[in-house]
Amino acid sequence: MTAPSGSSSARRYEPVRYTRGRMTILDQTRLPRETAYPELTELVQVETAIRTLQVRGAPLIGVAAAYGVCIALTGLPSLAEALSRAPEVLKRLAATRPTAVNLFWALERMERALAALQEPGWREALEAEAAAVQRDGAAQDAELVRHGQTLLAAGARVITHCNTGPLATGGLGTALAVLIGAHARLGGLHVYADETRPRWQGAHLTTWELAQHGVPHTLICDNAAAVLMRQGGIHSVWVGADRIAANGDTANKVGTYGLAVNARHHGVPFYVVAPSSTFDLSLDSGAGIPIEERSAEEVRAPEGLLLALPGTPAWNPAFDVTPGTLITSIVCERGVFQGPRYDLRQEMGV
Amino acid sequence: MTAPSGSSSARRYEPVRYTRGRMTILDQTRLPRETAYPELTELVQVETAIRTLQVRGAPLIGVAAAYGVCIALTGLPSLAEALSRAPEVLKRLAATRPTAVNLFWALERMERALAALQEPGWREALEAEAAAVQRDGAAQDAELVRHGQTLLAAGARVITHCNTGPLATGGLGTALAVLIGAHARLGGLHVYADETRPRWQGAHLTTWELAQHGVPHTLICDNAAAVLMRQGGIHSVWVGADRIAANGDTANKVGTYGLAVNARHHGVPFYVVAPSSTFDLSLDSGAGIPIEERSAEEVRAPEGLLLALPGTPAWNPAFDVTPGTLITSIVCERGVFQGPRYDLRQEMGV
Repeated sequence: MTAPSGSSSARRYEPVRYTRGRMTILDQTRLPRETAYPELTELVQVETAIRTLQVRGAPLIGVAAAYGVCIALTGLPSLAEALSRAPEVLKRLAATRPTAVNLFWALERMERALAALQEPGWREALEAEAAAVQRDGAAQDAELVRHGQTLLAAGARVITHCNTGPLATGGLGTALAVLIGAHARLGGLHVYADETRPRWQGAHLTTWELAQHGVPHTLICDNAAAVLMRQGGIHSVWVGADRIAANGDTANKVGTYGLAVNARHHGVPFYVVAPSSTFDLSLDSGAGIPIEERSAEEVRAPEGLLLALPGTPAWNPAFDVTPGTLITSIVCERGVFQGPRYDLRQEMGV
Repeated sequence: MTAPSGSSSARRYEPVRYTRGRMTILDQTRLPRETAYPELTELVQVETAIRTLQVRGAPLIGVAAAYGVCIALTGLPSLAEALSRAPEVLKRLAATRPTAVNLFWALERMERALAALQEPGWREALEAEAAAVQRDGAAQDAELVRHGQTLLAAGARVITHCNTGPLATGGLGTALAVLIGAHARLGGLHVYADETRPRWQGAHLTTWELAQHGVPHTLICDNAAAVLMRQGGIHSVWVGADRIAANGDTANKVGTYGLAVNARHHGVPFYVVAPSSTFDLSLDSGAGIPIEERSAEEVRAPEGLLLALPGTPAWNPAFDVTPGTLITSIVCERGVFQGPRYDLRQEMGV
């Protein structure tokens, strides 16, 4: 366990850091209680870290998987052996979580890089591609933050769901990065953070990140978001995405859809912020997005707290799909796309 | 601590039982982990039991307060002393919780009974009035269950929020009683129970009661209710109430309002079930209903589980108000009132 150095005012913590064959991660399942930095040196550790949400957030899952390929292959004695082993490694990493498309996008980048590797220096070239996955993502974050801020004014009171800060991408973040940036530039923002059951990413991670960045905030139960909107004075709702279909239908953390329905009912703008690596332009609509169902224990006995008797049936979809028609705008590194109808293939020139 | 006897197939547990100067309660904060029956013999214990939700549910709060008056007064040596002490007792009990109007309704009944007391036998007369509060409520439950069942068919899949079974009234219950009764009579119901953050009455109590009564059920996070409605096949949503204004605006457990907005969006009927002791006909609309705000700790560190760092600001409204216009029907002991416009003064002949 190693605490990474190199913190600055702009980057106070690093969710992943890779150096030859090993990845240090900030274990997100232990926040905010402790900041622990386990080191992963085996493929199976990377798989487990992604599955158990030690590393989570659609873009960061992609980054971690890219480094996972390096962890699995760069220790092998030859390029030939690495290429022989690669299909299984890619398959295993692709099987960790089904919904966030960034995982598959990053693995496809690594697969293309693998196909182009040559002796000598193949290890460095593979690691350079994984680093580029993270670096390109961070550059996209910076752009989408710039675009997203144009939708906010000083003093805005906003609601956000789940966690979409630096912890979610390995860069600045997406939706939460827009809010953090707008507060730094304009001042006076107040962020209401949905706790985000079942895994409490809002309570555990978003309030922690907002505190790190000095942004005034209030934690609420997911049930209280509609009440806030009804009281008035909420400027907008901001969320990230795990996969966006060509028509703008957006898979994101469960609860996003009900929140979007309430935003529409109250006339509150609803913004989705994601890099284009979250777009799945092979899908016409959200109907084709696979929705991960996780263990009933996350509902029934979260973090060891027994809420219902053992054996009580529970249903635990980790994500839901919000129709593009309920989304006011989709913000990505290319700019702000306006709803209520989206054609992301055309926007992206595909 | 005494386990009450007298269970039957229709009443497997008793949330309160009063005998001369003492009230045995089923401690609802310890369900479903254990069924503990502490005995209350002092007014301050009754106040604490109501405040801490050991006894909860709008109608049951009224019943417990009525018995609380008996606990406080029947041990006094004379009627004169009881009448002298009564104003303070009524005031203290009225200050326990602000939103459920049944509390004030029950205390007003006790106040009228107090005014009519005469030596000898004043203790028995006071206790008879408290018993009548419970008995009348139970009779109303039986009637509203009969009316509510007309809105259900065999095999219905329904969603419910919070807890509205026998635990909530000291009788059969309200919304959940309709579902339990419909399952017994028609068969094949499936109840999706919202966990109901922050206090988890759905997870702790509703799944426990449904299991006691043999009704098939599934626990879900509050965030998953909208997904279920979008998937289709949900027949209706059923909730209780803590206070209903003359125009049908209904205060109920936080999360009810957002659920009602989603039900409307999906064209799913939304039913409120409550005895008329929950009506507050002095109020034209829900704008006049006081909404209890409870401790931030219920959000930030529920049941000792640290979700966010100590000191993280949190907002914890215990209730919200659903406009009558979003309510398909209000079911009470008098029958089924149809929305979307309500005039409960006229319905009740006031």
